[in-house]
Amino acid sequence: MKEIKAFIRASKTESVLEELGNLGIDGITLGEVMGFGALADLRSARYSISAVKRYSKLTKLEIVCSDRDVHAIVEALRETAYSGQPGDGIIFVSELDMAVKIRTGATGDQDFAIKREGT
Amino acid sequence: MKEIKAFIRASKTESVLEELGNLGIDGITLGEVMGFGALADLRSARYSISAVKRYSKLTKLEIVCSDRDVHAIVEALRETAYSGQPGDGIIFVSELDMAVKIRTGATGDQDFAIKREGT
Amino acid sequence: MKEIKAFIRASKTESVLEELGNLGIDGITLGEVMGFGALADLRSARYSISAVKRYSKLTKLEIVCSDRDVHAIVEALRETAYSGQPGDGIIFVSELDMAVKIRTGATGDQDFAIKREGT
Repeated sequence: MKEIKAFIRASKTESVLEELGNLGIDGITLGEVMGFGALADLRSARYSISAVKRYSKLTKLEIVCSDRDVHAIVEALRETAYSGQPGDGIIFVSELDMAVKIRTGATGDQDFAIKREGT
Repeated sequence: MKEIKAFIRASKTESVLEELGNLGIDGITLGEVMGFGALADLRSARYSISAVKRYSKLTKLEIVCSDRDVHAIVEALRETAYSGQPGDGIIFVSELDMAVKIRTGATGDQDFAIKREGT
Repeated sequence: MKEIKAFIRASKTESVLEELGNLGIDGITLGEVMGFGALADLRSARYSISAVKRYSKLTKLEIVCSDRDVHAIVEALRETAYSGQPGDGIIFVSELDMAVKIRTGATGDQDFAIKREGT
């Protein structure tokens, strides 16, 4: 099982969620963070409280998925989050020891896989 | 050392924190996120800004712990976060290379273990 | 590639960001969370909604970096986030399978390394 985290432009949130829904990905969490340095788009960056650093609003997505779906999800994220301007964000992939659905207790890699026709 | 992340119903936050406190778990962080898809409880889901996707408010907990305590913590989370309705959330466990307490510099697995009587 | 997460006192945010900028670290995200237990500074802790648990406001930083830079970044975080009082926070380091810059597609360890003179 893998965890995918993506830090994307806040303005891309809607189209990314739409595309992940189309892919059949179920179970996405979304939070709001600030991006500094290469993660700020200086054309529209804001000043933080201290006025020392500029930042951009980013959306952080967290997705748990089957190993076999990592590539498709990363590609979908890259295509829909891309603007070509600095500040488009980063995607991380890491290994999970375990994921458990609280209601059902399901822990299998297939329990977190994208449902495909005929599977 | 392990990291446990739990995405739970916002309404279960208090009872989960209480139970983790009873277990002797020290050092929990809590943030607020939105859950989509299987992480939304459609009985009470809200519409996002775009009105395309419905979401539920979730609480995200992050806990660093000793390897030996993973099972007890996951069980406590599952029991206290469970409602039996869709949208109860997910728990992830992953391996940490290292954890450091900023004040003391402590990095040992035992420094993050639940203190038990006689240990 | 490594991911470094730091949960630090909110009041240390500015000096930590400044120091990470001086080190040449590019691409930091910042979010706000609540810290309970050992992560609360009881001198200034607030009561949560339920008035059962006290918490402190923490800043959560996430940084992706080259393996070779982990030590320098962890040291910089520890030095600048330190106050010597309980509630100074924790730093986690974990392994990433992959990190991808959305705009450029860059995925190499060196693409996330601190740029040094002569490199």
